[in-house]
Amino acid sequence: MKYLINKLRPKIIATLSTRYNIQEAEQIADMLLWAEMAGIKPMGLAKMTGTEPIQNMKAQHEIKIERETKLSQLINAGGHAAPLVCVQAVDTAIQKAKEHGMAIVGVRNTHSSNLTQAYYAERIAREDLIGITMAGGPASTAPFDSIDPIFGTNPMGFAFPTNDEPLVFDMTTAAMTWSGLVLAKAHGDKLPNNIAIDIDGSPTTDPARAMEGATLTFDDGYKGSGLSLIVEALTGPLVNAGYCDTDLASEYGSIFIAIDPNLLVDTVEFKNHSSDLLRKIKTSRKKAGVSEIRLPGERAAQTRKEAQDSGIVDIDKTVLEELGYL
Amino acid sequence: MKYLINKLRPKIIATLSTRYNIQEAEQIADMLLWAEMAGIKPMGLAKMTGTEPIQNMKAQHEIKIERETKLSQLINAGGHAAPLVCVQAVDTAIQKAKEHGMAIVGVRNTHSSNLTQAYYAERIAREDLIGITMAGGPASTAPFDSIDPIFGTNPMGFAFPTNDEPLVFDMTTAAMTWSGLVLAKAHGDKLPNNIAIDIDGSPTTDPARAMEGATLTFDDGYKGSGLSLIVEALTGPLVNAGYCDTDLASEYGSIFIAIDPNLLVDTVEFKNHSSDLLRKIKTSRKKAGVSEIRLPGERAAQTRKEAQDSGIVDIDKTVLEELGYL
Repeated sequence: MKYLINKLRPKIIATLSTRYNIQEAEQIADMLLWAEMAGIKPMGLAKMTGTEPIQNMKAQHEIKIERETKLSQLINAGGHAAPLVCVQAVDTAIQKAKEHGMAIVGVRNTHSSNLTQAYYAERIAREDLIGITMAGGPASTAPFDSIDPIFGTNPMGFAFPTNDEPLVFDMTTAAMTWSGLVLAKAHGDKLPNNIAIDIDGSPTTDPARAMEGATLTFDDGYKGSGLSLIVEALTGPLVNAGYCDTDLASEYGSIFIAIDPNLLVDTVEFKNHSSDLLRKIKTSRKKAGVSEIRLPGERAAQTRKEAQDSGIVDIDKTVLEELGYL
Repeated sequence: MKYLINKLRPKIIATLSTRYNIQEAEQIADMLLWAEMAGIKPMGLAKMTGTEPIQNMKAQHEIKIERETKLSQLINAGGHAAPLVCVQAVDTAIQKAKEHGMAIVGVRNTHSSNLTQAYYAERIAREDLIGITMAGGPASTAPFDSIDPIFGTNPMGFAFPTNDEPLVFDMTTAAMTWSGLVLAKAHGDKLPNNIAIDIDGSPTTDPARAMEGATLTFDDGYKGSGLSLIVEALTGPLVNAGYCDTDLASEYGSIFIAIDPNLLVDTVEFKNHSSDLLRKIKTSRKKAGVSEIRLPGERAAQTRKEAQDSGIVDIDKTVLEELGYL
């Protein structure tokens, strides 16, 4: 339902302030609203509900840098909220890549998921760098030919600079996020076909059964499964975080890679060619019934702009009720 | 049909020797056989047939290093055969990553595709590094909601070291490679459904019509299209190679990224956890009717071992006829 953003933001901050200081609460609130305004509901206020609401974070210890080189850093988040630590991680990756050409920063031991990969990848691309991000999470997704939840939702994000807005693309390698299942269950909605299996491996459209069983990868095939495996390895073993675990507790891992195009070509030239590449896609012939070919992230950016301009965001009623915002 | 490897290899080398010196011919022959022994026919001897046979390469100039930093190198291949230049590129990425922690090497202006991403990614992982590779090619694939060939086949490869063999995963973001279409046409085979469209954007199972039209991405969806777009940008604009072009001539681009796990964790620990991750997948509960859960690359490695042990490889008869090897 429609909600005024300037009424909603203080409420979110108030809820988050039970656990976070004001600056932290504002940053998390703005990231949740960023997702809501883009229409990415499972990465918005839904993260304040369910089994691991972000405001229930209990940090175990201070944030620690466990390893650092010129090109890398491994951050132990000490159970702090992922969005806060991951913004710091991204900014470190940006700074190192600007100085040395490329960088990788890993984060382990965060509480909850780090929200949308698009947010982080875009932040990197706004600095004229190429961004690649991946995030792990509790096992919910079955590998190809398996019926057990082994992989997390395992999203990947990519972004690169152009002469206009950065091109930002992110996707989950799972067919649906855990938050998506939670929302579907709360609404009493059926899942689409080929999204999930029950605990015995039979196809199901019941979100409750899917939560006991597993989701499938987005293509229900070996390619999606292979991509998910790569994300699992690079956000688990590579950052000393949990992996293949349905109860990850706080051991979520993430990685952020930043690459300066200038390592290989002039950045100006890269951006000219990137913009031209996107123009070629936009102006190609459309499939019958399609009014406009949209680039990755384009619809989200447009929806977000409309929300900003109108001051109104569309929020799930169930979520608003659960948070006591109605 | 069955062919003795020790009879076949000299024939391949003889054909390639019309253009390459003996060392080059041997290296290309072994890479083509590597693919054939793994059962990846479109990346094998089929590359010596069709519209751009690898032995018809006409180099324009010597291989040139166009840009170099501690972490990177851009190679202008001068129209030389991609497999030769790309092995050199991978070895440079490995050496730079071993010295500095991570590296990216780009290749532009190669003649023909660089064959399988698995080959290069595995070569990186055998050095205890994480490998990420991407390759561009002539436009053959329609973006989501478009009916024009804009993207190449656009494969991605990933590999990481474990305590046993490296885990190697590669995939095309297109539903089928161009060589796959060429083979299907030569055999008079129909394509599976949802693989391709004709020049007017209507679904087709005729490989000849698909070659005039476009292939779809592997999932016929926006995720596959987004991944293909990222490969297009990182193998076109990022290396100053061609992009979105049905007639790329020699302007194929490739990138090779090598990352030392030791930037973030101890390599021994990474390999222990990676092996454990793979064990968890292998020992998970199987889907009904599945006898064994196979990891990415596992079937290819097994098929290759069988060919090596028996000395016999299965080669497409049409290809053997075209090459005059029967």
